[in-house]
Amino acid sequence: MHSFSTLEEALDETEYVQENTAENVDVKRDIFSRLDQLINSNAILVSSTSGFVPSSFTKHLRCRDRCLVAHPLNPPYLIPAVDIVPSPWTSSETLERTTAFMRLCGQIPIVMKKEDPGFITIRLQAMMYHECWRLVKSGLASPEDIDTAIREGLGLRWSFIGPFETADLNAPGGIRDFVARFGKNLREIFPTDGPVDWSGELMDLVEAHRRERLPLSELRERQLWRDRRLLALAAHKNAQLKLP
Amino acid sequence: MHSFSTLEEALDETEYVQENTAENVDVKRDIFSRLDQLINSNAILVSSTSGFVPSSFTKHLRCRDRCLVAHPLNPPYLIPAVDIVPSPWTSSETLERTTAFMRLCGQIPIVMKKEDPGFITIRLQAMMYHECWRLVKSGLASPEDIDTAIREGLGLRWSFIGPFETADLNAPGGIRDFVARFGKNLREIFPTDGPVDWSGELMDLVEAHRRERLPLSELRERQLWRDRRLLALAAHKNAQLKLP
Repeated sequence: MHSFSTLEEALDETEYVQENTAENVDVKRDIFSRLDQLINSNAILVSSTSGFVPSSFTKHLRCRDRCLVAHPLNPPYLIPAVDIVPSPWTSSETLERTTAFMRLCGQIPIVMKKEDPGFITIRLQAMMYHECWRLVKSGLASPEDIDTAIREGLGLRWSFIGPFETADLNAPGGIRDFVARFGKNLREIFPTDGPVDWSGELMDLVEAHRRERLPLSELRERQLWRDRRLLALAAHKNAQLKLP
Repeated sequence: MHSFSTLEEALDETEYVQENTAENVDVKRDIFSRLDQLINSNAILVSSTSGFVPSSFTKHLRCRDRCLVAHPLNPPYLIPAVDIVPSPWTSSETLERTTAFMRLCGQIPIVMKKEDPGFITIRLQAMMYHECWRLVKSGLASPEDIDTAIREGLGLRWSFIGPFETADLNAPGGIRDFVARFGKNLREIFPTDGPVDWSGELMDLVEAHRRERLPLSELRERQLWRDRRLLALAAHKNAQLKLP
C-alpha cells in the first residue's frame, strides 16, 4: 500500500478509484469533479457511499459513464457483500469491470437493477433497525433481549442461508407452503404508523444500555474483537464449504 | 424418549408439558382444556405456537396461571433462542420455572414483558420478510441477490452480535454517533404504503427461483444439511467463547 500527498500523484496510471470521503453529497460532487479532470480515459470511479445514489454526484462529469457506487459493509476487509449501484448513465462495461474487480478482491457484488436511495443491504438493515427501536419503545423488550434474539436465534441461520432459503426450508412444501402456514400471521405484523423516532428518551435508554455493557473507552478493543470473530467465522464457513 | 398412546398415560407425574399441535387456535383451546383436566396440580402447560397469544386459548382453564407460550425457532434442538410469552394471568412462579427449565435444556429464553401477537423473534423476522418481498416486487433485486446480501453480509455480524451492538460498533462514538451519522438515511427508508402481497405472480417468481436452486424432492436433504451447519456453527461459537 502506498500513500500519496496529491491526487495527481495518486491517480497516475490508476485504473480503479474507490472514494471514501465524508458522507456529504457536496463533498462527493467536488471530489468527483476533481477526479474527472485527472484520471486517465479508462479509469473507473467508484464511491463507497451508503447514502447517496450515484446520479446525485456524477451527472455533470465527462466520465460519468465510468462512475458508480460500490457500498461495502463494515469492516469491508472481512464482509464479502458489496452493494453495486449503477446510475442511469453507468455503462454496462463499467458495471462488468467493477464486479469482476470486486470478485478478484474476494468481495461478492450485489448488483441493483437500477439506482434507488435504499441500497439492498441498507434497506434490509433499515427495516431491522425500525423494528428493533419499535420493540424497545413499546416496552415489550429490552435492547439486550433483541440482541440476544438475533445473536442466539435468527442470525444463526442467516450467517449461511438467506431469508428466502430459510423460509423455503421451514415448511415441508417449501416457500409456498411456508407462506400458506405462517404468511397471514407474519404479514399482519406491520407497523402502519410509520417509523419511530430514534432520539430523545428512547436514544437515552438504548445508549445507557450499551454503555452499561461496553464503556466507550473499550469500543475500539471490542471492534477488534468483532473483526477477529468475523475472521474466525470466515475460516469456519470456508472449512464447511470444503466438507464432502 | 417415550411415546404414549393416551394423554392420561403421558401426563402421569408430568411436571412440564410442551404442546406442539397444529397452528389452529381451536385445536389449542381443545387440547389445553383436556390437559387442564388431567395434569397434576403442579405441572406447567406450555405451547410452542408462533401465532397465538396464550390468553386466546387459556382464559377458561382452572390452571391458567400455569400456562404460557414458549416459541422455539426451527430447528429447536439447534437454535437456542425461545420467545417466552406470559398471559395476563400467568404467575411469576410459572414464568420463573419455565425459564429455569429452558436454561437447563440449553435454550436461551427471550421473555416478553407482556403478551403481544408479534413475539420478539416473529416481529424481527416479519420485518425482514416484508422488505425481502418488497425488494423483489420492486424489481430492484432477485431473491438470490437478497439471500446473498444476508448470507455474505448482514447475517455474518448478526450470528454473534445483535443489531444494537452492531450499530454501536459502527461509529467511533457508539450508537448515538451511529444514529447521528446514518440515522436520517436509514429512517427515510420506510415503506409507508403497507406490506406487499406475498401471493400471485410474486409468489410464482420467488417459488420458481427457489425450485430452480432446490427441487422439492431435495428439500429434506437440504434441511439436514442446514441442521449440520447449525451444529457446526454452535461448535464454532462455543470454541470462540473459550478463547482467551
